[in-house]
Amino acid sequence: MTGLITMDDLTNEEILSILDDAERLLPVARGELYLPLLQGRIMGNLFFEPSTRTRMSFETAMKRLGGDVINLGDVKTSSVVKGETLFDTIQMVDGYTDIIAMRHPRQGAAQYAQDAARVPILNGGDGAGNHPTQTMLDLFTIRQAHGRLDGLKVVLAGDLRYGRTVHSLSHALTRFGCELIFASPTLLQMPAEIVSDLREHGATVTETEDLYGSIDDADVVYMTRIQKERFADEDEYARCAGAYKLHAKHLGDVKGNMIIMHPLPRVDEIHPSVDETRHARYFEQAFNGVVARMALLCRLLGVTVPADVNAQGGAL
Amino acid sequence: MTGLITMDDLTNEEILSILDDAERLLPVARGELYLPLLQGRIMGNLFFEPSTRTRMSFETAMKRLGGDVINLGDVKTSSVVKGETLFDTIQMVDGYTDIIAMRHPRQGAAQYAQDAARVPILNGGDGAGNHPTQTMLDLFTIRQAHGRLDGLKVVLAGDLRYGRTVHSLSHALTRFGCELIFASPTLLQMPAEIVSDLREHGATVTETEDLYGSIDDADVVYMTRIQKERFADEDEYARCAGAYKLHAKHLGDVKGNMIIMHPLPRVDEIHPSVDETRHARYFEQAFNGVVARMALLCRLLGVTVPADVNAQGGAL
Amino acid sequence: MTGLITMDDLTNEEILSILDDAERLLPVARGELYLPLLQGRIMGNLFFEPSTRTRMSFETAMKRLGGDVINLGDVKTSSVVKGETLFDTIQMVDGYTDIIAMRHPRQGAAQYAQDAARVPILNGGDGAGNHPTQTMLDLFTIRQAHGRLDGLKVVLAGDLRYGRTVHSLSHALTRFGCELIFASPTLLQMPAEIVSDLREHGATVTETEDLYGSIDDADVVYMTRIQKERFADEDEYARCAGAYKLHAKHLGDVKGNMIIMHPLPRVDEIHPSVDETRHARYFEQAFNGVVARMALLCRLLGVTVPADVNAQGGAL
Repeated sequence: MTGLITMDDLTNEEILSILDDAERLLPVARGELYLPLLQGRIMGNLFFEPSTRTRMSFETAMKRLGGDVINLGDVKTSSVVKGETLFDTIQMVDGYTDIIAMRHPRQGAAQYAQDAARVPILNGGDGAGNHPTQTMLDLFTIRQAHGRLDGLKVVLAGDLRYGRTVHSLSHALTRFGCELIFASPTLLQMPAEIVSDLREHGATVTETEDLYGSIDDADVVYMTRIQKERFADEDEYARCAGAYKLHAKHLGDVKGNMIIMHPLPRVDEIHPSVDETRHARYFEQAFNGVVARMALLCRLLGVTVPADVNAQGGAL
Repeated sequence: MTGLITMDDLTNEEILSILDDAERLLPVARGELYLPLLQGRIMGNLFFEPSTRTRMSFETAMKRLGGDVINLGDVKTSSVVKGETLFDTIQMVDGYTDIIAMRHPRQGAAQYAQDAARVPILNGGDGAGNHPTQTMLDLFTIRQAHGRLDGLKVVLAGDLRYGRTVHSLSHALTRFGCELIFASPTLLQMPAEIVSDLREHGATVTETEDLYGSIDDADVVYMTRIQKERFADEDEYARCAGAYKLHAKHLGDVKGNMIIMHPLPRVDEIHPSVDETRHARYFEQAFNGVVARMALLCRLLGVTVPADVNAQGGAL
Repeated sequence: MTGLITMDDLTNEEILSILDDAERLLPVARGELYLPLLQGRIMGNLFFEPSTRTRMSFETAMKRLGGDVINLGDVKTSSVVKGETLFDTIQMVDGYTDIIAMRHPRQGAAQYAQDAARVPILNGGDGAGNHPTQTMLDLFTIRQAHGRLDGLKVVLAGDLRYGRTVHSLSHALTRFGCELIFASPTLLQMPAEIVSDLREHGATVTETEDLYGSIDDADVVYMTRIQKERFADEDEYARCAGAYKLHAKHLGDVKGNMIIMHPLPRVDEIHPSVDETRHARYFEQAFNGVVARMALLCRLLGVTVPADVNAQGGAL
């Protein structure tokens, strides 16, 4: 069986159909309905790099559906430190599980693992590479708010250079015909080759350093963390980052149904004053990680999500 | 839904009713009966400070009832180190779970978490603050041995200054009309404000440095660990701590049904010779942590414990 | 109830009957069949020393059978560092679980734990002592390939001095009348007292430094890792270890049904070129750890494995 390594593994139709499944699974993810579609299945959680949010939401997704999880655990005390190759580790876990969720610091590691494994690999982030389950939950969140994916105006802001999340999402949004506005300090601009690739695929892309001037027209503002380590000195960092901190006071003229997203954890790029506004959607977005991953787990394991979950699930 | 942050969240009637539920759940906790009352529910284990016993017994409680658990994992590699606030971490886990068990080094953290969460928080210890699930299992153990909570004579011994366990328990025992004897080195005395507060609430309190002279009349002797770090020098420690080490030889004149308790882990404040006596109750007390937490999980999740568990559970 | 501390706890008849159970459970281990024989049971995983493969396969074994697992977690942050004795830790976990899988760096620790516990202990390796579940999965793998255990010619190669795996296996193979060839550098020879003990029990043992000259007659070649730390200097290591690295080119004249095993993780004692040959059996061997442990868990918990699992299990 084949897994999900990059968004290119899915057609637009498949994406939409998985988002439909995710929508149906909402009451199960919320713990309102018991629907053990994955009872008897085991997922291996192989996080070669820690990621609390991604690991926990994969684990919740599996358990909400009645499945179970085994964790590789701390890489620092695992067989990896005894010099075991990724190939051998995958061979082992392949024999213990039905599906593997994996994060790895090295780009390409997920594809390498898929080539070695019989079970499907769910890429939970491979270095500067891909993070397709994040993209799926982002798309779910956007569609949930706006009822559609096509023709939206999306501002992506902050660190566009190193953030695989915004790279993946930009490509996906382009496939659905969104207009993209990239707001970032010059140092952290979206890489030129990605911008030109997006344009080749028909995207309308605007690049700017002015975040606050970009949001009034937007349907979605997607914030990311600007890391101090990217800058040569503290002053430069403070000057740049300061212009990418969203506060409730910036939201006076935005569209009523504009949503603000963030892959989290945030540091101070979104001020707590924003939390109370109708625009804040980042905590729901984190929750949507569960439902998006539930739908993906079912799809990759060949389990059909029933059209009417209420008819098949038990009340809780 | 609201959680359990401090014992003040429960009336005496509620305490007794939860202890009744715990009593009923004993065969389930012992693995003699399968009763999946919490099937489909997920508990988040957020231990910002390690605690093997508390974490494992919360986890066992949930799993014995057919529920499942997701762990935050090692705080040193979690999103917390990326600068995430407790508020944001709780928002995340809130979306993944139905209830959260939490331990945190900072006093007040549990209440803060409850204010941020939709799901109930079970405070598993917040710094020098509260540890109500420990108090519940202590009360369960005492009632199990003596058939009642009121009118007992309870010696609390060792480190009474820093031990949140003995603070919480003293308040609870006062509510049930117990007589309290505080036996400790001067340096580790029960804080004066707690003593006067207990007296205001009607407690009879005696303070002494003489443990061995206090136990012959007692119904319960509750030992705690005296930590070397509390003392300025090694000699002072050795002199003080030596007078708070219980040995079987000290038990010649005690009441036949007196029980010795300890929150564990112990170091050498209870000699192994005591383990064989009829008075030792600390290992059962640790086991009672499971049953007390099972009852609390059911209560906070709104699940009724059946009056006759044998009629509803399956044999194992 | 009593556990499994050493292979001496099992008669030959019991070993064969457990291997029969393991055989029956293969479709459950593969995730093709759902058979929750251990629903409602909890295993404690007490790994006082990390072991990814052993821990994960114990966990998978329990979960494939519908049971659940609680982990002691990182020993460095557990109650063990607060000075808790093994006796007290076992008393605690004994109250939380139905069975305990345990690995400990100290020889004899598993027996000590069994003496302290009411629940059965499954020894997952105690220092230089025993590792019986590894031996069971090794025997299962050999019998699966050759249809029998008796009268086989088995080469054990590499570090025979420190490897508890090969010590345990040698004893077990002797009980079934196998012929043993020990191929190792002089420095890492099988201890003389073990060799003489095996001979007293009727084994035919040959000792040699020549691995490549030993394999053409063999039914099984069991490789182990040679650790650099065992040698005084790097040159000595390189010279010795180089003669215990199996490559596909060495397999030209071996028997068609000869199998190559390794407890894993390997470093470079088996070249990847071997993976593609019909002889490689180490990844299946790792998988067999699940099915062997499933059979042992059932046996120790007093749960009968049905003769026809297909009739009782649910399709997946």
